[in-house]
Amino acid sequence: MNNLEELLVRGDKRAIARAITYAENYEEKAKEIIKKLYKRSGSAYIIGITGPPGVGKSTLTDKLVKNLIEKGNKIGVIAIDPTSPFTGGSILGDRIRMQDLSLHPNVYIRSMGTRGHLGGLSKGTYMATRILDIAGMDYVFIETVGVGQSEIDIVKIADTVVMVLAPGLGDDVQAIKAGIMEIGEIFVVNKSDREGSDKTVVELNMMLDLDDTKDWRPPVVKTIAYENKGINELIDKIFAHREYLIASGNLEKKRNQRLRMEIIETVKNKLMNNVFEKIQQKDFDFKLQEVIDKKIDPYTFADELYRDIFNKNL
Amino acid sequence: MNNLEELLVRGDKRAIARAITYAENYEEKAKEIIKKLYKRSGSAYIIGITGPPGVGKSTLTDKLVKNLIEKGNKIGVIAIDPTSPFTGGSILGDRIRMQDLSLHPNVYIRSMGTRGHLGGLSKGTYMATRILDIAGMDYVFIETVGVGQSEIDIVKIADTVVMVLAPGLGDDVQAIKAGIMEIGEIFVVNKSDREGSDKTVVELNMMLDLDDTKDWRPPVVKTIAYENKGINELIDKIFAHREYLIASGNLEKKRNQRLRMEIIETVKNKLMNNVFEKIQQKDFDFKLQEVIDKKIDPYTFADELYRDIFNKNL
Repeated sequence: MNNLEELLVRGDKRAIARAITYAENYEEKAKEIIKKLYKRSGSAYIIGITGPPGVGKSTLTDKLVKNLIEKGNKIGVIAIDPTSPFTGGSILGDRIRMQDLSLHPNVYIRSMGTRGHLGGLSKGTYMATRILDIAGMDYVFIETVGVGQSEIDIVKIADTVVMVLAPGLGDDVQAIKAGIMEIGEIFVVNKSDREGSDKTVVELNMMLDLDDTKDWRPPVVKTIAYENKGINELIDKIFAHREYLIASGNLEKKRNQRLRMEIIETVKNKLMNNVFEKIQQKDFDFKLQEVIDKKIDPYTFADELYRDIFNKNL
Repeated sequence: MNNLEELLVRGDKRAIARAITYAENYEEKAKEIIKKLYKRSGSAYIIGITGPPGVGKSTLTDKLVKNLIEKGNKIGVIAIDPTSPFTGGSILGDRIRMQDLSLHPNVYIRSMGTRGHLGGLSKGTYMATRILDIAGMDYVFIETVGVGQSEIDIVKIADTVVMVLAPGLGDDVQAIKAGIMEIGEIFVVNKSDREGSDKTVVELNMMLDLDDTKDWRPPVVKTIAYENKGINELIDKIFAHREYLIASGNLEKKRNQRLRMEIIETVKNKLMNNVFEKIQQKDFDFKLQEVIDKKIDPYTFADELYRDIFNKNL
């Protein structure tokens, strides 16, 4: 082990920060670290926190983390932020979040941008999760922003997915509900002091009752995160879900499936980077002009380009 | 031209529906249609409607479409719905939206799921847009659900992006604002009868004034869509943006850039499908077991798999 790796396995925050920066930039260095230290991973429990904007996910995560460090745990938090598509930088950047928590010796918090267009989670999320695992975290929280691909992707990486909702978010969210039913393993109605929270809970329970194909029936928990209400109950439900996963053998299945995805994604990303490089190198602007002039259509040209890259350059 | 193609160029709704179904399933048939009819495309003006859940995008789109058909236009609407990651089906499915409008002879409305993980928009969106263009639509609306990749992707496909917000959507949305500033070419504060709308307008204007690098300064329009208020003004702004794009030469640049993306995406999708097929075929489960048993790490295995696919199978 080199110095960075030694510091990393001891949970040194600066070493973690550097390793995750490698992961975020999808550098070979991050892969090298994980290749060496892979055997040390596998003990962290991964919790995904997801849901539409405005439901209070950050505050809820904050309270959950506080609760778990009081129980003596080490916690890593990865907050997925939407990335500016133009600057490539994380929009929320060094946002002032969880300030008091990030100073705690047993907590490491990191924002990661959703750079890259291969899905809603950052390309480096798998690696960053492993790095936190290797660094000895008992729990790793992955918090997403927004409804979309990241919400779908989080299922692939988390052991337990907590879907956070709030009353009165408008029709869109009502409509989206049917989709998120499949994603959440625990449902939270946060801001439950708001009007309509009981109605939201009833509706959720009704929809969840419709699906009798699963062994685990997702519970619905009411919270008021900023008042720290319902947090203990939510932690209990997370523990119950973990117990269920272990007892049923599903935790192992889930993690093996995740490993499979991690490998496939790695191959895909590598391939995409390579191909994109080839395409960029292939100055095809002169040919593009023919498409613009409608001498050739874009799909015939794409077919040509594909054959060209495939046969000659790969 | 075969029968379907003839009906399509005449704007027959059933022909459009079938062609878009081909596009949605990314069938070669859709490509064949576009290859043949590509020269007929290019006259539709593409308007992206995006913004967080709950701001009233559907109602706003509905009113914009009504306004434009009254002016004698033919309109196509593609509503991007979040897809269930498990069933692959569109979550909102055949949702009851714009029912009266969809019966109008000059309007074609279609929901498309965000299937595939190569970005927020459906893989078939480029093709579906072209099909509506070929079918003689004057305007094509692409409406996204949610904040995320689809919002980022819509910039690539739309001529004018309308970013819809509403007052009081919570802190997340406030935080996200910095990112959406770069995406919107027109900003709408819908539900402007709600408390805090003036504050939201002022904040938006302040942020927009910070960026003095652009020729086009995005206007902010207040609407109350369900009361049909502010719609005329919004239409005027869309027209003004179109005029700006044409006069500055940016419309051509934007569309050429889009064509470039369409070609690259087509190559990428084809490659991904091919590689994924290869990976699926390669029954690597025996090797995966070694990774599970920690005899080998996932990244070393991914490297091996990559070399294997590259050299032997592609």
